[in-house]
Amino acid sequence: MPAPRAPAFDPFDVPESNASAVPPPHDAPNRKRWYRRLGEHAGITRFGVNLVRIAPGGQSSFRHWHTEQDEFVWVLEGEVVLVTDAGEQVLKPGTCAGFPHATGDGHQFINRTAEDALILVVGDRTPGDAVGYPDDNLAASFVDGRFVFTRKDGSPL
Amino acid sequence: MPAPRAPAFDPFDVPESNASAVPPPHDAPNRKRWYRRLGEHAGITRFGVNLVRIAPGGQSSFRHWHTEQDEFVWVLEGEVVLVTDAGEQVLKPGTCAGFPHATGDGHQFINRTAEDALILVVGDRTPGDAVGYPDDNLAASFVDGRFVFTRKDGSPL
Repeated sequence: MPAPRAPAFDPFDVPESNASAVPPPHDAPNRKRWYRRLGEHAGITRFGVNLVRIAPGGQSSFRHWHTEQDEFVWVLEGEVVLVTDAGEQVLKPGTCAGFPHATGDGHQFINRTAEDALILVVGDRTPGDAVGYPDDNLAASFVDGRFVFTRKDGSPL
Repeated sequence: MPAPRAPAFDPFDVPESNASAVPPPHDAPNRKRWYRRLGEHAGITRFGVNLVRIAPGGQSSFRHWHTEQDEFVWVLEGEVVLVTDAGEQVLKPGTCAGFPHATGDGHQFINRTAEDALILVVGDRTPGDAVGYPDDNLAASFVDGRFVFTRKDGSPL
């Protein structure tokens, strides 16, 4: 079959990054997850779609919830552990999960297997978003186009 | 593996519908596609996520583009033909496509195989959306929470 052409594409043709908005050295736990910005590649601006590869021992992010952003995740490959206030559960490919904004219940995906895990992550870009981190002394607000991180009391990291 | 529990879920546990906002009898070509409202099931409001099953001979929708809504599609199972101004192409599982708003280039997925095709479709809910249909004498605007369909000249269908 010929390679897809625009507006279709092979998601693995999009460059991968493990950059983090969390300033070093606090970003270290997040550097084993790599993402491809599929929505941005397609010219989409109203929401983000990321193909996220969590390497063995990695996590998608710190456990967190958003004040404004809804998130949706579809597990594509491998096995991930979803952590929420209700505890842990293992999710297999073909399972999905939704995280409405402002619940106060943080979520996080961890890869405890020896193989990569792939998840498709969608999130909107509603203005005024902020992020709560129930398990870490961390807070974030979206200001001037980027997330600014502080400790919970607002002091610098 | 135990069944997923909230906020995770098995997408196939969500009820399926082939309802169409297009009034009958104009809806007939769209009734061979069935969708599960995964985002709504998860309590998400900022964007929609639908698991769409296109039965053999079915189409996702009339070929269309949105003035405000961005759309993103991931092909999960089967083979679909994507139709745009550039022509037709067959997409296999693991391929994706993005449709930014206001391009004027309509898109549509058709299933010409003998097996069901499954695609995951994401779209935002930016207010003031309207829909253009390059191949059909059809127009739609989102008014009071629902799409209202007319002919291109604004007369009733």
